[in-house]
Amino acid sequence: MQRIESHASHGGIQDVWQHESAVLDCTMRLGVYLPPQAQQGRCPVLYWLSGLTCSEQNFITKAGAQRYAAEHGLILVTPDTSPRGADVADAQAYDLGQGAGFYLNATQAPWAAHYRMHDYVAQELPALIEAQFPATDARGISGHSMGGHGALVLALRNPGRYRSVSAFAPIVAPSRVPWGEKAFAAYLGEDRAAWREWDASELVAGASERLPLLVDQGEGDEFLASQLQPERLRAACEAAGHPLRLRMRAGYDHSYYFIASFIGEHVAHHAAALRG
Amino acid sequence: MQRIESHASHGGIQDVWQHESAVLDCTMRLGVYLPPQAQQGRCPVLYWLSGLTCSEQNFITKAGAQRYAAEHGLILVTPDTSPRGADVADAQAYDLGQGAGFYLNATQAPWAAHYRMHDYVAQELPALIEAQFPATDARGISGHSMGGHGALVLALRNPGRYRSVSAFAPIVAPSRVPWGEKAFAAYLGEDRAAWREWDASELVAGASERLPLLVDQGEGDEFLASQLQPERLRAACEAAGHPLRLRMRAGYDHSYYFIASFIGEHVAHHAAALRG
Repeated sequence: MQRIESHASHGGIQDVWQHESAVLDCTMRLGVYLPPQAQQGRCPVLYWLSGLTCSEQNFITKAGAQRYAAEHGLILVTPDTSPRGADVADAQAYDLGQGAGFYLNATQAPWAAHYRMHDYVAQELPALIEAQFPATDARGISGHSMGGHGALVLALRNPGRYRSVSAFAPIVAPSRVPWGEKAFAAYLGEDRAAWREWDASELVAGASERLPLLVDQGEGDEFLASQLQPERLRAACEAAGHPLRLRMRAGYDHSYYFIASFIGEHVAHHAAALRG
Repeated sequence: MQRIESHASHGGIQDVWQHESAVLDCTMRLGVYLPPQAQQGRCPVLYWLSGLTCSEQNFITKAGAQRYAAEHGLILVTPDTSPRGADVADAQAYDLGQGAGFYLNATQAPWAAHYRMHDYVAQELPALIEAQFPATDARGISGHSMGGHGALVLALRNPGRYRSVSAFAPIVAPSRVPWGEKAFAAYLGEDRAAWREWDASELVAGASERLPLLVDQGEGDEFLASQLQPERLRAACEAAGHPLRLRMRAGYDHSYYFIASFIGEHVAHHAAALRG
């Protein structure tokens, strides 16, 4: 691993690293925030998955999460949102290809060669973090929009792997909204049966573990009705008896101003599960 | 004034406004954060001046100051760093022209026509803010790097206008470092006698008001020795008997990670003076 940025932050260190991912078969960047407590011993890890068009930079520069991670002694790990590079398939659109990996394993050409973000985030990344950093294997996962979808799906697909999960303005039912339909058709093919495995509102029905879902959603979010539709997750959780805390936040939009306003509550939620 | 962005943030509202500045003779943008307390009554105002290459966006997206402004009930006003527009003189360099106004009133062609950031920030902007928003006339001022220079100079040149002043990694002696020498030669001309009026380390000797200066400086700042040289301000304050609290912060660099780490302490410092 090669360190390409390092900044003191709230008594800890916000670094950006670069490494060769075997799963994705390309060079990847990720942010790692080590809180001051990591100088004394191992700390739990909160994984953050960002949304469409983002890289590892957005969350670490805009969310203000380091303050809370330092308070609670959590490591923050923020991967990029897709495989990257000149050899990696891409599309002209902002919502497909590089910057838009949707945290799944693609099965269709030309995407299948590199687009395996699920396995990268669920397996390769924790193995790397737990070997190279003062990290325990207590893991939480959170994210925003496409990354909120990713956090929910990774937690639901991998029982026992995460002790806590939360999301900001997640795409809760990608099979049934334009962003998800476009991406799933490209990455997974036209057979919608294969889509169910990557849709949080479908996965709750079969979840073997009742990990509580914490979701914050702005009522002023410009994508609320068209792409996010949190009521679909609420209905699925009610039908399955899956614990969900869905908080509608009056006035808040889809931006990092929304995330920054409530990230402290999410970090505290994860810390309670990870350190408690 | 025309509102061009509006985001709920920490219970208040982060807006971006655009207006025609009479002093600068161009269209200007500025950030205005209204804390929740502004819904009940008038609040004091903390002005923030950003550094080289910045616009009104950097501080409002990266510093995380809204949380503390909401806690203390302060309005945050963040102007751009220079006049802007196709009709405004510019240079190819990042440290001269648009994005590099140095918060002074230029006297030399071609700059004198628009580059009057001192009068804009000290006079036009507060008049606008106090007329258009629920703001009192209790004003604090802070800033980073070139904007730290601006905050110190504006406070020292305008006794009674600000109740509190602070700076992050300020250019404390622009007359004697490359960034300042280049800008002052262009904006003020080659006669260095004119430069003294825009140099905090020169102004403290003649200050009629002993407003305490709060300065945070990272020891890992890449510009510390070449451009910042806080020891010059310390020597000037000691010679003049001017109160200075200069805090050297081990490990911190020149970035917004440094600002975000300590902006809470600065907002509390201003709040104590502005609301106390």
